[in-house]
Amino acid sequence: MVQGGIPERSLLVTIGGAGTGKTTFGLQFLQHGIENGQKGAFITLEESYDRVVQSAGEKGWPFEEHVQNGNLAVVDLDPVEMANSLSSIRNELPQLVEEFGAERLVLDSVSLLEMMYDDQATRRTEIYDFTKALKNAGVTTFLTSEADQDNPFASRHGIIEYLTDGVVVLRYVRPEDFRETRLAVEIQKIRDANHSRETKPYEITNDGISVYRQANIF
Amino acid sequence: MVQGGIPERSLLVTIGGAGTGKTTFGLQFLQHGIENGQKGAFITLEESYDRVVQSAGEKGWPFEEHVQNGNLAVVDLDPVEMANSLSSIRNELPQLVEEFGAERLVLDSVSLLEMMYDDQATRRTEIYDFTKALKNAGVTTFLTSEADQDNPFASRHGIIEYLTDGVVVLRYVRPEDFRETRLAVEIQKIRDANHSRETKPYEITNDGISVYRQANIF
Amino acid sequence: MVQGGIPERSLLVTIGGAGTGKTTFGLQFLQHGIENGQKGAFITLEESYDRVVQSAGEKGWPFEEHVQNGNLAVVDLDPVEMANSLSSIRNELPQLVEEFGAERLVLDSVSLLEMMYDDQATRRTEIYDFTKALKNAGVTTFLTSEADQDNPFASRHGIIEYLTDGVVVLRYVRPEDFRETRLAVEIQKIRDANHSRETKPYEITNDGISVYRQANIF
Amino acid sequence: MVQGGIPERSLLVTIGGAGTGKTTFGLQFLQHGIENGQKGAFITLEESYDRVVQSAGEKGWPFEEHVQNGNLAVVDLDPVEMANSLSSIRNELPQLVEEFGAERLVLDSVSLLEMMYDDQATRRTEIYDFTKALKNAGVTTFLTSEADQDNPFASRHGIIEYLTDGVVVLRYVRPEDFRETRLAVEIQKIRDANHSRETKPYEITNDGISVYRQANIF
Amino acid sequence: MVQGGIPERSLLVTIGGAGTGKTTFGLQFLQHGIENGQKGAFITLEESYDRVVQSAGEKGWPFEEHVQNGNLAVVDLDPVEMANSLSSIRNELPQLVEEFGAERLVLDSVSLLEMMYDDQATRRTEIYDFTKALKNAGVTTFLTSEADQDNPFASRHGIIEYLTDGVVVLRYVRPEDFRETRLAVEIQKIRDANHSRETKPYEITNDGISVYRQANIF
Amino acid sequence: MVQGGIPERSLLVTIGGAGTGKTTFGLQFLQHGIENGQKGAFITLEESYDRVVQSAGEKGWPFEEHVQNGNLAVVDLDPVEMANSLSSIRNELPQLVEEFGAERLVLDSVSLLEMMYDDQATRRTEIYDFTKALKNAGVTTFLTSEADQDNPFASRHGIIEYLTDGVVVLRYVRPEDFRETRLAVEIQKIRDANHSRETKPYEITNDGISVYRQANIF
Repeated sequence: MVQGGIPERSLLVTIGGAGTGKTTFGLQFLQHGIENGQKGAFITLEESYDRVVQSAGEKGWPFEEHVQNGNLAVVDLDPVEMANSLSSIRNELPQLVEEFGAERLVLDSVSLLEMMYDDQATRRTEIYDFTKALKNAGVTTFLTSEADQDNPFASRHGIIEYLTDGVVVLRYVRPEDFRETRLAVEIQKIRDANHSRETKPYEITNDGISVYRQANIF
Repeated sequence: MVQGGIPERSLLVTIGGAGTGKTTFGLQFLQHGIENGQKGAFITLEESYDRVVQSAGEKGWPFEEHVQNGNLAVVDLDPVEMANSLSSIRNELPQLVEEFGAERLVLDSVSLLEMMYDDQATRRTEIYDFTKALKNAGVTTFLTSEADQDNPFASRHGIIEYLTDGVVVLRYVRPEDFRETRLAVEIQKIRDANHSRETKPYEITNDGISVYRQANIF
Repeated sequence: MVQGGIPERSLLVTIGGAGTGKTTFGLQFLQHGIENGQKGAFITLEESYDRVVQSAGEKGWPFEEHVQNGNLAVVDLDPVEMANSLSSIRNELPQLVEEFGAERLVLDSVSLLEMMYDDQATRRTEIYDFTKALKNAGVTTFLTSEADQDNPFASRHGIIEYLTDGVVVLRYVRPEDFRETRLAVEIQKIRDANHSRETKPYEITNDGISVYRQANIF
Repeated sequence: MVQGGIPERSLLVTIGGAGTGKTTFGLQFLQHGIENGQKGAFITLEESYDRVVQSAGEKGWPFEEHVQNGNLAVVDLDPVEMANSLSSIRNELPQLVEEFGAERLVLDSVSLLEMMYDDQATRRTEIYDFTKALKNAGVTTFLTSEADQDNPFASRHGIIEYLTDGVVVLRYVRPEDFRETRLAVEIQKIRDANHSRETKPYEITNDGISVYRQANIF
Repeated sequence: MVQGGIPERSLLVTIGGAGTGKTTFGLQFLQHGIENGQKGAFITLEESYDRVVQSAGEKGWPFEEHVQNGNLAVVDLDPVEMANSLSSIRNELPQLVEEFGAERLVLDSVSLLEMMYDDQATRRTEIYDFTKALKNAGVTTFLTSEADQDNPFASRHGIIEYLTDGVVVLRYVRPEDFRETRLAVEIQKIRDANHSRETKPYEITNDGISVYRQANIF
Repeated sequence: MVQGGIPERSLLVTIGGAGTGKTTFGLQFLQHGIENGQKGAFITLEESYDRVVQSAGEKGWPFEEHVQNGNLAVVDLDPVEMANSLSSIRNELPQLVEEFGAERLVLDSVSLLEMMYDDQATRRTEIYDFTKALKNAGVTTFLTSEADQDNPFASRHGIIEYLTDGVVVLRYVRPEDFRETRLAVEIQKIRDANHSRETKPYEITNDGISVYRQANIF
């Protein structure tokens, strides 16, 4: 859907409601990178290390092996602690990325981090500074974000889509005949890249996310 | 609706408005477990011990007997007290689950627990930590949650669906001819399991929840 | 609409906007009980004793007589005072109910009581404890509740429908041709009882609430 | 539209947006009373004495004369002062009504009074006590109320319609072809009186409010 | 659209979103007055003196000349200062109007003044007192007001339409075929005057606001 | 779409959601100016200097060269710092503009600046004073603004569209058949200039923003 692929060293966000496969999307992004000789890191605020590795394994992606081979780091952080130490994480990020040699980074999810700040101004400033650090770290990053309750095209806190180079929207399409809810993906923004604005159906299968590029939703 | 059944040791939530049968859903989940040789626990913040046992009894599920046989624990807690002592409950949970040998746990409802925290940040942190403890306790848990007033697919506080491995949505479908309100169930998310995304009609009968897998809503 | 009638000793709520006949509904519930040899109590936060007796009288229900015969108590309370002394009311309720021998109780309306608490957490806790006391008092209770401004199926404060055993929704149906607004009733929940989910038209007549069970709304 | 007319000594409210003729409605209510030998009082928080008399005069209602004949009192109050002294007004109300012999009272508008209380709980308590005093004063009262911005059937603060014996809704009906906005009146509630629930068109003419009882809106 | 024209010495408000021509409407109102021998004053909180004069000039209205001839006063005020000194402005208003002999006054916009008060109660009281002073000043006043974001028929703060004698609504009509957005004007209220309730298209041309009285929107 | 082009020395805002090409719009505005012999300045709160230059370069606009030739200034500011020093920026602005000789200025985005003020009144006053300074600086300015989450025609904070001379709305049009999301542009306001009110489709191509003036959206 993106001509020439995702731009290197860009910061992207996947916005979606519960069950739209945001986490799978992130795991797959890393697996593809590692298959192509890139190193990656998966930072999760939602799951334990074991659950992440297990989830990937069930899709046939040998994360355990990747970790042992030094191609992958999986880090489970407590969101409260991450929020409290975000300024030091921010400062150490470039060095950590460089030392490990990560070219792909996933943070699942930025919403859980955002939620830890009660004061709106603090949240905005912290997230702004954090995205700036990510852009400077020389790594291609995919953030996952929960969707706004009322607007599937907006993120929960309505700011991250403005601070990223690209926005992918995952959402439910519920036909009026109540038959079967479908999943639809749309690229809303990729800075400096041409991209289709078509809404495409996708499924979460045993092998990961499958986008049906030739099909239309209905 | 789930291929291979609900994953063991996962944390699930049933979201539904008043009268959609969330509690019945939870009772039935335990009854099925006990019929298959599993032990279970029902924690209620909404009803008394007697009402829970009576409600199950009217569906033909001998909860009194299960309790006497040591296969079931029914605990009625005051939500205020539960909220106040959540950190100690959290700490003791794994031990309690292990000692009793519970493989299935129901909490009815997580919304009433969430409501007891006035401060949003405290609520999120407490619920986050609580779900983490539940995941670690080695038990398959079903939480019930009230639905958002305006969005039947979201929980009342909009967070629990992001912290669970599975989400079941129970909701009303009101046809335009005002004839009869129907009940519809949809699985929104099951982590690491294939599941149908079909919306299926169900009824609350004398025997519990009956999902009509072959039928469509209209 | 309920097979086998309303369960004894249950707590029910009637949700409806202004003018949907909630109060008439409550008066009629007591009149029916008294006609069948049950004693009843009507607690009003909205009207004076005289207005309640007069309103009933105009429907042909001799409340004055019922009071004199010791079959009915009509109590007009100030909502502020009721809110302030709710914990003592709660404590004395079982004794009062037992002494008077009331089998049916109406509180008109719970919304006015809820409104007296400005702090959400206090309101929830007070209402939760109050409904628990009502359930324990050994009496069948009908609360009336104002509807949410935007959602006729939800109560004004969005909590009472989750704490009761049954929910009856009274609402306006406004046809698109602007002809005549109609009234429609729907049972949303009756715990442990089968009930129809049909929406039925009703009218407020000189004889009280008349539900047209055989008719459809349009 | 009301069988047998408006009940004596009841408290009614007219809800409507800006320009729906609420004030005219109130003036006309008094004029009709005076024509039938009743005395009346018009309390305005929105206009000066002169403007009220002039407005009535333009409809052909000789309010100046009524005042001189002792059949009418027109009082312009400052809403801030009225709010501040509401408890004493409340106490003196029955005596004032009795001394003057008023049988009809109009307050234009209750919304402006409600607005003067910033604290919701204070507002509710004050308005509740005020409506109780009005009911006890032995006078038929018409309050005017602004409509909720989003719901023409609800009052601005969403409480007065629950505290009154009758509710009249005045609203705009905007046809989809954008031709001409029409005015429509509907009686939402009259306690202890049968009333039509038809929506009827009306106009504000040189002679006051004209309801077209035989016509339909479209 | 108003039979017999706008009533003298009345207070009117024009409600409209950005770009609906509220300011042009106000300039034109003054120009028409001056052409008919009336003096006028334009108070702007949004533009500089020079921009106002220039804007009028581009419509062919010689405001510079009017000012020099003593027929027009154009005053640019800082909204913060105006809010801070509103009580003294209010007191001096009648004298200022009388001394200058202004018969028409425009304030562009009342919303910017309203915004300067953070506290709702203060805002309401200040605006209420201000409108009362304007009514007493013996001048015909046109206020401009921003529209509510969600409801084009309501003002931004939802109070000014209730305090004025007349309300003119300017709004966008966006046809479903996405062709061309049109502008529509509707008189919502003129106290003591008959007025059409038709929605009429208008345009902002080189000569000012042009209402097409014979045309319909579609 | 604007007859005679954008008025010189005016203040304009482009409102649009994430991915609608607001930044590209701003870059193109400067490139066109420089091609016609005007100097320009690009102030970004969202990107680094390098990213701005790179983004322009990919559209074929040699910003690096423009900077070296002294025809362009690209300044990346931290929004927190800009907010904190806005009053001094405001004071120095006219001098800076004059010294550099800039005739076109872009600020990307005003929303990020607005967000830095937590207090609404402070935000309004600061933004009001800032727009006034921009109008006085003798430069044609294009601000970019995020759109309101629920209303694509309103800015995020709902004030900037009232303080500018022109408003351009960029938005998504999502056809009901879910095929392809399209982009649409509409001029909402240009003070003192005639402009079309047609909604026109546009695309973000390798060469920048392309508006299809002859085409309709559907």
